[in-house]
Amino acid sequence: MIKSYLLAPGLRELFGTAQDVLVLAASGTGAMEGSVTNLLSPGDEAIVVNGGKFGERWTKICQGYGVVVHEVVVEWGRAVEPTAVAQALESHPKARALFVQASETSTCALHPVPALAELTRRRDVLLVVDGITAVGVLDLPMDRLGIDVLVTGSQKALMLPPGLAFAALSERAWAAVERARLPRFYFDFRRERKGVAERSTAWTPAISLVYGLRAALQLLLEEGLAEVYARHDRLARATRAAASALGLRLLAPESPSPAATAICLPAGFDGSALFRYLRDRMRVTFAGGQDRLKGKIIRIAHLGYVDAFDVVTGVAALELGLRHFGAPVELGRGVGAAEVVLAEGLPAR
Amino acid sequence: MIKSYLLAPGLRELFGTAQDVLVLAASGTGAMEGSVTNLLSPGDEAIVVNGGKFGERWTKICQGYGVVVHEVVVEWGRAVEPTAVAQALESHPKARALFVQASETSTCALHPVPALAELTRRRDVLLVVDGITAVGVLDLPMDRLGIDVLVTGSQKALMLPPGLAFAALSERAWAAVERARLPRFYFDFRRERKGVAERSTAWTPAISLVYGLRAALQLLLEEGLAEVYARHDRLARATRAAASALGLRLLAPESPSPAATAICLPAGFDGSALFRYLRDRMRVTFAGGQDRLKGKIIRIAHLGYVDAFDVVTGVAALELGLRHFGAPVELGRGVGAAEVVLAEGLPAR
Repeated sequence: MIKSYLLAPGLRELFGTAQDVLVLAASGTGAMEGSVTNLLSPGDEAIVVNGGKFGERWTKICQGYGVVVHEVVVEWGRAVEPTAVAQALESHPKARALFVQASETSTCALHPVPALAELTRRRDVLLVVDGITAVGVLDLPMDRLGIDVLVTGSQKALMLPPGLAFAALSERAWAAVERARLPRFYFDFRRERKGVAERSTAWTPAISLVYGLRAALQLLLEEGLAEVYARHDRLARATRAAASALGLRLLAPESPSPAATAICLPAGFDGSALFRYLRDRMRVTFAGGQDRLKGKIIRIAHLGYVDAFDVVTGVAALELGLRHFGAPVELGRGVGAAEVVLAEGLPAR
Repeated sequence: MIKSYLLAPGLRELFGTAQDVLVLAASGTGAMEGSVTNLLSPGDEAIVVNGGKFGERWTKICQGYGVVVHEVVVEWGRAVEPTAVAQALESHPKARALFVQASETSTCALHPVPALAELTRRRDVLLVVDGITAVGVLDLPMDRLGIDVLVTGSQKALMLPPGLAFAALSERAWAAVERARLPRFYFDFRRERKGVAERSTAWTPAISLVYGLRAALQLLLEEGLAEVYARHDRLARATRAAASALGLRLLAPESPSPAATAICLPAGFDGSALFRYLRDRMRVTFAGGQDRLKGKIIRIAHLGYVDAFDVVTGVAALELGLRHFGAPVELGRGVGAAEVVLAEGLPAR
């Protein structure tokens, strides 16, 4: 039995909710699956915003459980247009839920969750948000916005190893749980909610990570969530400024995520070779592109315990790596541009 | 991506199989659920050996997914009779799978898995074994016995914190997976098997625990599995000898588990008060009884990293605790009886 009384208020503050935040022994995908199986019944219709690998995952989970999916397909790197979602809601009035990523990790684009919540909270449609690279990165207060389900994982802004997933549900989402008939057992949110009430969990919890969670929440709340969000925004702007100074295009320039930045490599450049050189020879690990973006982009994460000098290191490594492979780079130009932004975070004296 | 090439052979040796051992980010119940959803289809029939809390869990999972369950109910503390299972198999010829615990943790009884495997391997019935307190405790070579699915968790004989679950499947179990139509996504064993082939996992792995797993497997394999099993048997016999010397009855005297021993408290004794006194005042934590056994038994675990002097500590604490609550106890009598057995494990010189 994990005593949760120190954890529960911290998690509620992080999620911006008065509801219980469920703690699951699983990676984030488990909480995504639970968000489908606890809300819906076989044959139900749902709308999925698919603008990347993780949007696609909502579709796969829904279809795997017999939910009829209407996709709002978004070009990789772009944010969904609220008007496109409004139109999908009009076209599919029986849709019971809208599934979306707050931050689509595969493209580093930020979807406009507050605008989508405007649409769903006036309708009988549940808004389910994958906040895996958003909770603790940007302000996403679920109760105030009207998000119905918000999920995240332990290994992003919460700075823990992977192995915990989290989910919080609105009042109307809990009402939907009572009606939902999709099968679930391990990810049965009602059992977990009962667990929270008893300061326990339904199944054996991943104890070592729960202890880490307590420490992580303390770090975040001591820094103050407003400053945490400002820091993520600053690191993201610094990274984007560096890319621009180096003449590199961003994959998601219009609505970039504060969690990570996807930088397009010059045409013809072998991104996979650059990725391996940086990781294996310089010991600096970026993320590459997935699927159709493989070899074409480099993603720089700047969330969680990342600080200003990690951004400096990342940009410097990128400059050196690009030059190593023959790209024309003025060394230090990107770092300098990043520093201009990072200086905003310096103590006043 | 976790490099699994050091882990895979160790896990195969531990499971006694040439098959892949899947590593899931979940507690053991997740692997139990996956064993149901990956093998069966809606409306399929299955036989469940229900002799405790965990047998009951097989039933709940199956029913939660629309599987028709025929239970072989076993008195708590007893092992199932193979003839009762044979009869159930005759009565329900359409049953596709038999679900059982190797070691039923709630009662500390050991079910006769080799005898059950004799029954299932001659039939078109899959034998699914919950080995959560058995794998790494006793010899349970799945390929040789003909176990079709063997699952375990990280926090028992593997000596890790909770958060990893494991499953291995026989050839005919993998064939059943191809036919099974129950919905699954997070616990989709086909995706995980593909992951193993790519030295990866389907979803983000619980990395910190996987690193620990490598160390745990090394400890077990260096000690040698034969000695690991002998040690568990010795500690279990020592614990039972202590209970007998103290005049206490065992809950499962006929087929006791080498993982843990359930000791019945004298009639009228307040087991919950004893449990709390031992835990809170003496800092020695036993497990109590669950459900109908609440307050009536004390369970002493002796698996994983437990050694001879942990058993001595446990027995001494039990003696002192019983005396504290007024039971007539000759202090040291149980410890002495344990030591006689523990001496078998002493180095020869």
